[in-house]
Amino acid sequence: MNFSNKLIEIITDYAESKNVDITCRLVGSMAKNTSLMGKSDIDIFMTFPLTYSEDKLKEYGLEFGNYCIEKVGGVPEIRYASHPYTTGIIDGYEVDFVPCYKISDSSELKSAVDRTILHTDYIQSHMTEDETRQVLLLKKFMGSVNTYGANYKVSGFSGYLCELLILEYHSFENVVYHAANHWHNRYRIDLEEYGTSDKFKDPLIVIDPVDKNRNVASALSMQKFSEFIVACRNFLSDPKKDYFRDRVISVSGDDLCEEFRKRGTDCYVLSFNVPDLPDDVIYPQINKTMNSFVKVSEMYDFRVIENSYYIDSDNIAHIILEYEFSRLSNVKIHNGPQIRFHENGVNFKNKYPNAYIRGNKWISISERKYTSVPEMIENIVKKENRSILKLGKNVKDEITENYVLSSVFDLIDEENNEDYEQLFMHLFPDYKLVR
Amino acid sequence: MNFSNKLIEIITDYAESKNVDITCRLVGSMAKNTSLMGKSDIDIFMTFPLTYSEDKLKEYGLEFGNYCIEKVGGVPEIRYASHPYTTGIIDGYEVDFVPCYKISDSSELKSAVDRTILHTDYIQSHMTEDETRQVLLLKKFMGSVNTYGANYKVSGFSGYLCELLILEYHSFENVVYHAANHWHNRYRIDLEEYGTSDKFKDPLIVIDPVDKNRNVASALSMQKFSEFIVACRNFLSDPKKDYFRDRVISVSGDDLCEEFRKRGTDCYVLSFNVPDLPDDVIYPQINKTMNSFVKVSEMYDFRVIENSYYIDSDNIAHIILEYEFSRLSNVKIHNGPQIRFHENGVNFKNKYPNAYIRGNKWISISERKYTSVPEMIENIVKKENRSILKLGKNVKDEITENYVLSSVFDLIDEENNEDYEQLFMHLFPDYKLVR
Repeated sequence: MNFSNKLIEIITDYAESKNVDITCRLVGSMAKNTSLMGKSDIDIFMTFPLTYSEDKLKEYGLEFGNYCIEKVGGVPEIRYASHPYTTGIIDGYEVDFVPCYKISDSSELKSAVDRTILHTDYIQSHMTEDETRQVLLLKKFMGSVNTYGANYKVSGFSGYLCELLILEYHSFENVVYHAANHWHNRYRIDLEEYGTSDKFKDPLIVIDPVDKNRNVASALSMQKFSEFIVACRNFLSDPKKDYFRDRVISVSGDDLCEEFRKRGTDCYVLSFNVPDLPDDVIYPQINKTMNSFVKVSEMYDFRVIENSYYIDSDNIAHIILEYEFSRLSNVKIHNGPQIRFHENGVNFKNKYPNAYIRGNKWISISERKYTSVPEMIENIVKKENRSILKLGKNVKDEITENYVLSSVFDLIDEENNEDYEQLFMHLFPDYKLVR
Repeated sequence: MNFSNKLIEIITDYAESKNVDITCRLVGSMAKNTSLMGKSDIDIFMTFPLTYSEDKLKEYGLEFGNYCIEKVGGVPEIRYASHPYTTGIIDGYEVDFVPCYKISDSSELKSAVDRTILHTDYIQSHMTEDETRQVLLLKKFMGSVNTYGANYKVSGFSGYLCELLILEYHSFENVVYHAANHWHNRYRIDLEEYGTSDKFKDPLIVIDPVDKNRNVASALSMQKFSEFIVACRNFLSDPKKDYFRDRVISVSGDDLCEEFRKRGTDCYVLSFNVPDLPDDVIYPQINKTMNSFVKVSEMYDFRVIENSYYIDSDNIAHIILEYEFSRLSNVKIHNGPQIRFHENGVNFKNKYPNAYIRGNKWISISERKYTSVPEMIENIVKKENRSILKLGKNVKDEITENYVLSSVFDLIDEENNEDYEQLFMHLFPDYKLVR
């Protein structure tokens, strides 16, 4: 009897002793034989009849999970998805015990986790043994070209999406061939021919076989969609085994300095602590924050040539803002009303006494608000009407109170390998797409 | 007998002795009593019957003009308008002797000078004595706010246009009132109600009373049209006598330096000799040359905040190019094809090996052609495919072979008052519009 079955037996026995009618199931990639070694959790779902209230479901779910983990010598911990569940490390595996309802199709869905059962059923009943091996190849490839994972940080392909691609195309090679040659924005895959793909506007539309109103690829960004297509083209033009291994970044501080010097840009790094919250809460906020800095910079005429961000292992976020120049003239052209609007012209001239005529309108060479990037950032963060800058709500305080703005060369001077890798990826974003 | 009549008598007698049937007429502002003191020429037109050939007209015209000027002790000189004419300084007046045909309306026009007779007739027969005084006020005002003159250098109002404005509005004050309050782009004045103004698209349309297919204001630029309107508004809000006197510019080198420093711009002056050709030939070429430098600068991402030009008394043209910054990063974003165009992507990546993916398209951070303004100017003038830069044909060689590019501060260091005035006008272009 394997490990999962043993855990299921413990829980089932305990539930029976409590007169609770549940069925336990191993779900997810473990159940589907599509998990990559060393990468997967054991997901055990406890399915309750629809007659149980949600409160009872949560209460029993946590109790049974705790019991089982303690029984086999682990330390239980409560986590929250759409409802709370118990997790623990047992024998080196992360095991999740999730309570859910016993449903037979998507019309009975009460929460997102209930759907996992339907997914597991669908894959188990439709996938051949060879196809499960093709899924492993695809996941490995996706992982090493950095397009695997539906979490916000990656915004790539989920495991279930990889499985559906194999069901559609039958083999890894065929997926790669089609992606490389046929995929385009809003490409549609509809295994059960529901005909519901019209309502989606995502880069890739893969209708969920167990829920015709859901696009399995909705979390996939245009960026990762494009990157996967290009990685597939790269692979086909020179199909090396290396495409199934992570590409290691090895770069020295001197190399990085040299590269930034060659670019001749003014590259700043804005750093601040981030609170210890789940990645899917924090990453979107840092991304939004970065985009806002870029937008405001351009508004003040500082052109951004490239930008990126990362959160390091000390929970410090770094937003890299690389500018074409960091100093501007003290003045700029301020466009005024047309000469024919007498009254407006008078007001403009009163406001800008140096205003003069250019063609058929008033202009003024008037003082620029900010003439350097550090001055602009200091002011928009600390003094300006905040509404101009859109900061993530959980990082706002840390930024406004404790941000540090450094030149990229100062960051390089700190000789931190983690920073080096991220700076390297900032300079060479396609590095992992090719071998 | 006044001076003009004496000259006319000399010519008429001489022509009679040669058996040539001409009538001499004083034309222009002298004939119309609308000349400003010390500003006007004496224009004497010799009208020939239409039976004379153009060759005869030219031959006799020059002969009679020469005779008369020599007779009163002047030195004749030949000039060219639509046909050659004689000019000379006599008693401090510049006197022009111009041959033309005797015509009674515009359908008989053989050249532009023939029209002058019709203009003189029209004004003499329509203008009251008071109105001629109003013309003088208007011309004086126009002159001191720098909108008087139909030559290209000013691109303002001609004397005849001033006269027609007075015929339309009867008084200086009324012209000023209407310009200030009612004029707008494509404003129409049609004294003879020809109804032909639809065909013109100029800022101001004043149909010639002696030629319904001609806009008397066609040489007026939008700039000078706007400036006159604003000067009128300024005058009406505070009608000082100073508006009829030139406004003197008195500025020190230190003041100019201070002003350019306050602006914090990178201001360059491109200087080169211009050939000794009429203003109306050279000025448009310098203007075209300047506009081309501005356009090419912006094409290479160097933003121009203000530009102007002048030709000094040593026949050196100076083009002032004031930039928001004069140095840029070594690299810039180069947009490539969309990912979905496989072949184009391959070509782009071959051309720019560092190309990577941004969203749904390829981009490359590639080398900028020019990273500084002097480098750009040196190259576009001397090395680049010339077609990119549009240089006036008579100044092309001087620019490419002998241009000098200086910082505005170097020009200021030369302590030339003429430069100071022009730099001052560059900084404060509306200075003359207000008192």
